[in-house]
Amino acid sequence: MKDASLVKELRGFVAEREWSQFHDPKNLVMLLASEAGELLAEYRWVRNDNADDFSREPEARQRIANEIGDVGIALWLLCDRIGIDLQAAMRDKLQRNRRRYPVELSKGRAARPTE
Amino acid sequence: MKDASLVKELRGFVAEREWSQFHDPKNLVMLLASEAGELLAEYRWVRNDNADDFSREPEARQRIANEIGDVGIALWLLCDRIGIDLQAAMRDKLQRNRRRYPVELSKGRAARPTE
Amino acid sequence: MKDASLVKELRGFVAEREWSQFHDPKNLVMLLASEAGELLAEYRWVRNDNADDFSREPEARQRIANEIGDVGIALWLLCDRIGIDLQAAMRDKLQRNRRRYPVELSKGRAARPTE
Amino acid sequence: MKDASLVKELRGFVAEREWSQFHDPKNLVMLLASEAGELLAEYRWVRNDNADDFSREPEARQRIANEIGDVGIALWLLCDRIGIDLQAAMRDKLQRNRRRYPVELSKGRAARPTE
Repeated sequence: MKDASLVKELRGFVAEREWSQFHDPKNLVMLLASEAGELLAEYRWVRNDNADDFSREPEARQRIANEIGDVGIALWLLCDRIGIDLQAAMRDKLQRNRRRYPVELSKGRAARPTE
Repeated sequence: MKDASLVKELRGFVAEREWSQFHDPKNLVMLLASEAGELLAEYRWVRNDNADDFSREPEARQRIANEIGDVGIALWLLCDRIGIDLQAAMRDKLQRNRRRYPVELSKGRAARPTE
Repeated sequence: MKDASLVKELRGFVAEREWSQFHDPKNLVMLLASEAGELLAEYRWVRNDNADDFSREPEARQRIANEIGDVGIALWLLCDRIGIDLQAAMRDKLQRNRRRYPVELSKGRAARPTE
Repeated sequence: MKDASLVKELRGFVAEREWSQFHDPKNLVMLLASEAGELLAEYRWVRNDNADDFSREPEARQRIANEIGDVGIALWLLCDRIGIDLQAAMRDKLQRNRRRYPVELSKGRAARPTE
């Protein structure tokens, strides 16, 4: 994340509460996965056909944004703790995915070519 | 995410493969949660005491960065699909968390004050 | 689980490998959630309309059964470790759910009445 | 699950509320993973060293049992929907795991021999 003021706020939030003692990487991946689970819960009874519309309903949207905020914070806390640059990790993975899913074999198909 | 070139690359990756048909928000939260599960798997046998050191071992670190890249991509795809600004959502949530976990009640305590 | 021979086999499998040292409850919930994530991955690109048919395709079915086996084992290991009777926990929860989702308010509606 | 009365109760609970329309396998794996995420949340700030003791504290234990009940119900609903015998799936997977983790290579080691 390149937004310096948000970085500063997040670090300050943790430091003021003396929470870095709880924020070892194992606990933070649990935080991340449990927040991802809460986001999942929002969509569990929503049908695929209705998922875009649902995401625009004001009350649902607020809850979804809320859970996305939690997931984003957890992911950022983890990256900051272990010194990984999230955007670099995304770029690297995108590069790998380009090789793993060549356009000609993957066009319009969700599954991995070798699957 | 404010990095315009990464945004462009991610959109291009999806468009070339004609994958937006699979990327409704329901499917993307499943992608996100399953990638978070893979990250979780990296740490499941690592003890808290050892989790920072483990995160620095070169081979583990590469796998972790890889999974973090997947989680970041899934989260970004979701935000892009439903039009949510990730950093704004993180700021909003941080603001809520400040009220939910007042410093004086939360210092050095992981649990929510009301729990 | 009331199947005494399966209980004996599971305990023997862990004991022979001296794995109970890794199987504290924290690690086992991580195992459970990461296995649930793998099951999730099987269905992430499958549409609701197609999910029953997909579950009957022989290759998919084998992978799904495989992941269900992993989730079941992780859940059982956790219950055995902390001394919780899974079926009693399911009965208790079902009883709570009866109160939380009264028939007259919940018929044909997925959301919680108070939501 | 061999407990015929619990099976009957679970099916009755769903039927009375006309919920089978929501319970396609895709939605049920999302339910399962989100419930596993709630169980994960219980342990996210608990250290490995303290996880067994924590699981015995009465209030925590009640919440944990509650979440385990949810996970068990979700897993059972999925198995019932797609016609998979949970205990058979567990046995099959245990058999595979015996081959994947031979005793002589796995004793006291959490990682897979080939990893």
